Amino acid sequence: MTSEPSLLYCYTMPSKFIIGIDLGGTNLKIALLDLRYQIKDKEVLNTQKFIKKENLICAIIDSINKIIENNKLSRANILGVGLGLPGPIDYEKGIVHFFPNIPGWREVKLKTILERKLRLPVFVDNDAKLMSLAEYKLGAAKGSRNTVCITLGTGVGGGIIINGSLYRGVSNASGEIGHMPINEKGPRCNCGGRACLETYIGNNRILKEAKRLFRRDITLEELSYLAGKQNRQAQTIWLRVAGRLAVALVGVVNLLNPDCIVIGGGVAGAGKILFDNIRKIIARQAMSVQAGHVKVFKAKLGNNAGLIGAAILVRENAKVSV
Amino acid sequence: MTSEPSLLYCYTMPSKFIIGIDLGGTNLKIALLDLRYQIKDKEVLNTQKFIKKENLICAIIDSINKIIENNKLSRANILGVGLGLPGPIDYEKGIVHFFPNIPGWREVKLKTILERKLRLPVFVDNDAKLMSLAEYKLGAAKGSRNTVCITLGTGVGGGIIINGSLYRGVSNASGEIGHMPINEKGPRCNCGGRACLETYIGNNRILKEAKRLFRRDITLEELSYLAGKQNRQAQTIWLRVAGRLAVALVGVVNLLNPDCIVIGGGVAGAGKILFDNIRKIIARQAMSVQAGHVKVFKAKLGNNAGLIGAAILVRENAKVSV
Repeated sequence: MTSEPSLLYCYTMPSKFIIGIDLGGTNLKIALLDLRYQIKDKEVLNTQKFIKKENLICAIIDSINKIIENNKLSRANILGVGLGLPGPIDYEKGIVHFFPNIPGWREVKLKTILERKLRLPVFVDNDAKLMSLAEYKLGAAKGSRNTVCITLGTGVGGGIIINGSLYRGVSNASGEIGHMPINEKGPRCNCGGRACLETYIGNNRILKEAKRLFRRDITLEELSYLAGKQNRQAQTIWLRVAGRLAVALVGVVNLLNPDCIVIGGGVAGAGKILFDNIRKIIARQAMSVQAGHVKVFKAKLGNNAGLIGAAILVRENAKVSV
Repeated sequence: MTSEPSLLYCYTMPSKFIIGIDLGGTNLKIALLDLRYQIKDKEVLNTQKFIKKENLICAIIDSINKIIENNKLSRANILGVGLGLPGPIDYEKGIVHFFPNIPGWREVKLKTILERKLRLPVFVDNDAKLMSLAEYKLGAAKGSRNTVCITLGTGVGGGIIINGSLYRGVSNASGEIGHMPINEKGPRCNCGGRACLETYIGNNRILKEAKRLFRRDITLEELSYLAGKQNRQAQTIWLRVAGRLAVALVGVVNLLNPDCIVIGGGVAGAGKILFDNIRKIIARQAMSVQAGHVKVFKAKLGNNAGLIGAAILVRENAKVSV
């Protein structure tokens, strides 16, 4: 008969969770994730309800407290809070430089403000960078080495993974593929530039072109549906978007020689017509060595990519061992 | 009285040198460098004398043997041979994929061929990458972290340093800034692309535009001299070059958020009018955070950058300890 080992210590670590937040110009998403990045609870608020900066910060704090309470957790269960934010961020100091599409934010020490109010570790970064991190770790770019991720929405953002790590640039402002000019002359962009990719393929520009062609308001979803049904006008719109996006992508492929490009965001919902044509143009117009080594994928994590990326940011930076 | 320590071993290591080679469409340069990258001897041959691949390889071998002999050295003094080559290279396997401007080279195992004939370690890489490495280690980009180097000649090449290391991409083909499109529509490029930067600001295109404007043949040097003397037509040419180069650079700055851009090659000889305008356009049109962190410098190492880069390649890869 073998004796059971004597139980000297019986100490149960509290289960750990992460709070991920994805702030967009339209929605503020808050989620509770476990350490395997599974979403356990989620709330979506309308960002535009909060006109003043102070109100938005209060809403973030209230939702965090609510999600902890609703799930019968305490602060000891929370490894940290990660926020993906729609603008340039000093992620080391936790400062929001500004938000192009949310007024009133200028050099806001958001990390310090939230840590003081929440008594939890807080990490902030640019939303497109976090989406890229998520797609690289868990999504369409899993297993690649040098990846460029692009998110197509009202704004066109992006993130770059180099040799397996998020590449931040010298002031954490890399990845702005939406602000690569695709013509010598062209429309003025909000960023101060000219002929930026975003001025041609941002949501608003696509919808405006579609309205002109269809002589009525039309949604992106309908445009995608109609293109699938071989509607010529809808196809024209998507071919133009693919062509313009591919101009920037050919440049990126020749410059960075990545093995993977991931495209997500609402506009990527166009699917086959968009992706087939982007792949075709890259194969034809990028340099042969680079074109032969790159794959173009649709993002896999959908609307949750930002939340998952925010959780990865916490997991990779929080000092508490788990 | 203290006794002298007994001399058990007396072994003098031979002084070590590196042979650097820079192969261009016009010149084949061969140099002997010491381990501090000082050029001790140098020979320049005309590449176009060697029509056939075999003749060019023989010329390289002959010049290496000659430079060793002329300097009264033996193979034991040579750490290795580094070659900067004008095209896409598999630097790990030492294979030349092809040269856009020298016919007859397709998947040539140059490293193996030369090592067999020379009985010396040989390392090969793309010339623009090696120039970038040289400017980063010893030239204009010394002390920077994320650098983009551009070389303006018949071709427009480049190299990227990321977090202090040469970034190669997934198949060693990164850095082709000359093949970023700067318009949706534009002239066909040798690379198969359209509206590539190189088709607008490659030497030949500049000289052709200048000839049209001046109604006679004119050299780059004269164009630069005339611009310095306030000649309107020459200034027009350089302003157009600066504007077009800046379209690609604004994209690169927004995408990569580098702290340093180095511009070299013959066209960079235009100097002030070119650099002042590039800096002005980047400050005005790149995104504020990125524009605020980037400096644009003229390359420092001139015609020797390729040779020095080739020597750095050897120094960093040769296994013999020195």
